[in-house]
Amino acid sequence: MSAIQKNVEATSEQYSSSFTKGHLALPPAKKYLVLTCMDARIDPAQAFGIELGDAHVIRNAGASAVDALRSIVISEQLLGTTEIVLVKHTGCGMLTFKNEDAYGVVEKNLGAKAVAELKEKKLDFLPFPQLEAAVEDDVKFLQASKLVPDSVTISGWVYEVETGKTRRVV
Amino acid sequence: MSAIQKNVEATSEQYSSSFTKGHLALPPAKKYLVLTCMDARIDPAQAFGIELGDAHVIRNAGASAVDALRSIVISEQLLGTTEIVLVKHTGCGMLTFKNEDAYGVVEKNLGAKAVAELKEKKLDFLPFPQLEAAVEDDVKFLQASKLVPDSVTISGWVYEVETGKTRRVV
Repeated sequence: MSAIQKNVEATSEQYSSSFTKGHLALPPAKKYLVLTCMDARIDPAQAFGIELGDAHVIRNAGASAVDALRSIVISEQLLGTTEIVLVKHTGCGMLTFKNEDAYGVVEKNLGAKAVAELKEKKLDFLPFPQLEAAVEDDVKFLQASKLVPDSVTISGWVYEVETGKTRRVV
Repeated sequence: MSAIQKNVEATSEQYSSSFTKGHLALPPAKKYLVLTCMDARIDPAQAFGIELGDAHVIRNAGASAVDALRSIVISEQLLGTTEIVLVKHTGCGMLTFKNEDAYGVVEKNLGAKAVAELKEKKLDFLPFPQLEAAVEDDVKFLQASKLVPDSVTISGWVYEVETGKTRRVV
């Protein structure tokens, strides 16, 4: 077992021994979802004030709304959420490369077969060159989608990994 | 401003006032990623023992590895992670419907234009009928992908929303 796997087991022992939230319902109690980045420096529960059971939390590279659409539709149409809080962040890795750079790294590290798989899957890494503009673009994408009804409240934010602050953009 | 937006602002004020982690680096310090579900009843940091800065956390409906592939490749190839901890959970919404059910709900709630957008985007909701089998399938999918080298350590787990326990499956 790896050190990380041992840590999961040890944490589980401790966490479950004082766990009191086994009664929570499947649909989020506060009917909202947070979409943010997978970045290691973000703890959504702490930074955005999410109590256990209150909100769906979707995370991917760059907090991409395009990438998250499947989960967002499930959250809203099947589990009743009516508000989206979208949070990108300063110092995001997605600001630092372009698709062709990522394809180049994959080719160098993993070879031609891996690049063939990227192409077969039409994988777009969805990087973005400017942070606030990317928040605006993603909010617009959600507003324009027929899969997100106008009744859904959408806000866009930037979390600052340097200060722990979350500020509103849209 | 909605109550949820006010909560983000109030939490930000408080969280940033005692924030001491502004120095953390972009790449995850412990070089791993956790892939789990967006479910509101999961707090990955607490339940799986993730310290701020240590790991990428990817979350989507059902903890789908297929859906997360873009983020996983970025995590490994551009940000140096070498281990994947995949955690699905008991009581998952993805166990309760089929693609055609979800398409039906979208049609009923949002109409024909929304269904047309689903079809145009070829949106597969990726539900699964059996929990442990889905963990195994996702681990196999990652092992088979040329985009995840054999050197990456992969484990598959189930988190029990009733007890707070995380148990190993693969």
